[in-house]
Amino acid sequence: MLDLPISDKLNKQLSFIIEIDQLKTVLRQAKIMDGSRQENSAEHSWHFAMTMILLAEYSSAKVDINKTIKMALIHDVVEVYAGDTFVYDEVARQAKIEVEKKAAEKIFSLLPEEQGQELYQLWWEYESQETAESRFAMAVDRLLPILCNYHTGGYSWKKHGIRREQVDAKNELWKTAAPELHEFVCILLKQAEENGLLAES
Amino acid sequence: MLDLPISDKLNKQLSFIIEIDQLKTVLRQAKIMDGSRQENSAEHSWHFAMTMILLAEYSSAKVDINKTIKMALIHDVVEVYAGDTFVYDEVARQAKIEVEKKAAEKIFSLLPEEQGQELYQLWWEYESQETAESRFAMAVDRLLPILCNYHTGGYSWKKHGIRREQVDAKNELWKTAAPELHEFVCILLKQAEENGLLAES
Repeated sequence: MLDLPISDKLNKQLSFIIEIDQLKTVLRQAKIMDGSRQENSAEHSWHFAMTMILLAEYSSAKVDINKTIKMALIHDVVEVYAGDTFVYDEVARQAKIEVEKKAAEKIFSLLPEEQGQELYQLWWEYESQETAESRFAMAVDRLLPILCNYHTGGYSWKKHGIRREQVDAKNELWKTAAPELHEFVCILLKQAEENGLLAES
Repeated sequence: MLDLPISDKLNKQLSFIIEIDQLKTVLRQAKIMDGSRQENSAEHSWHFAMTMILLAEYSSAKVDINKTIKMALIHDVVEVYAGDTFVYDEVARQAKIEVEKKAAEKIFSLLPEEQGQELYQLWWEYESQETAESRFAMAVDRLLPILCNYHTGGYSWKKHGIRREQVDAKNELWKTAAPELHEFVCILLKQAEENGLLAES
């Protein structure tokens, strides 16, 4: 909390704003597209939210796009305490949900109660993948690292020896959530495979 | 454009998504709050949009908060071509608007026409500061570097010898757009001045 004579509510909100600044230091496996360095989760979240604005029309279900934009903005906030989990690290992903739930409780409780609960629920809606909004959002979230890899010579795929079928498995949800985008991803992955960006099966 | 057999529309949208990745390499004067490095405009845009979600209630006018969130996300996209202009660099700021207008025309024209025009108009609404949404958004945008400076020992203020009255002048719009936040900024600046983070008048 800031040591300043301001309302308890504003103090809590500002403390949260300051705390989440740390997301700028959480590194992901992907590089930014010019290949110069690893991407961090804050700038990824911006790119994700922008992509949501741009590709909203490709959702097969009618979605509240403003809600999906907010989901994109907060979906990684728990990483301030939990760190980033590589999408193909199956061992870490099994433990991920419990670790992230604890991190979510901790970080959203910095906020005034009602606001914290609202954002926690939005984060959990994204994670639990039971609504059209959360499914479309996750589909778009998965598109970005594929584009990134395509533009950086398959940097994180090569580093971890990722095979085509592993990427395909993670993108199954494209088929129903956003068929036209799924089709694009298939074309892109075929070319990536032909160019040797993915490991052989 | 991507050399892939996909629709012209999707190709344009993806080209824009790839082009704006460069915003992650545009550096601002402020450091991130742990003081380790300069902040880039993409991660700043994320922080700005998050802050908009969190502080929406402090707008004196009734605003469409979803619109302000979108404004926050796109407000710096033109910097991909125009670079960042320091808020206290008065010479650069005079040329800024024409340079950024050209950059906006260039970058938004990568998109399908209707979508590009829509985003150009949203960007221009923010810049021209004639609506309640754009005024509240700019007020929140100004809050973040003040918080940043406060947390990094006045890094960019000291580097450029910024005085209290310069910061005050930039924050005049707080008074009407978000009175309670303006009051907080005044308290923070008073403490920053007492702690020697701002240059003497």
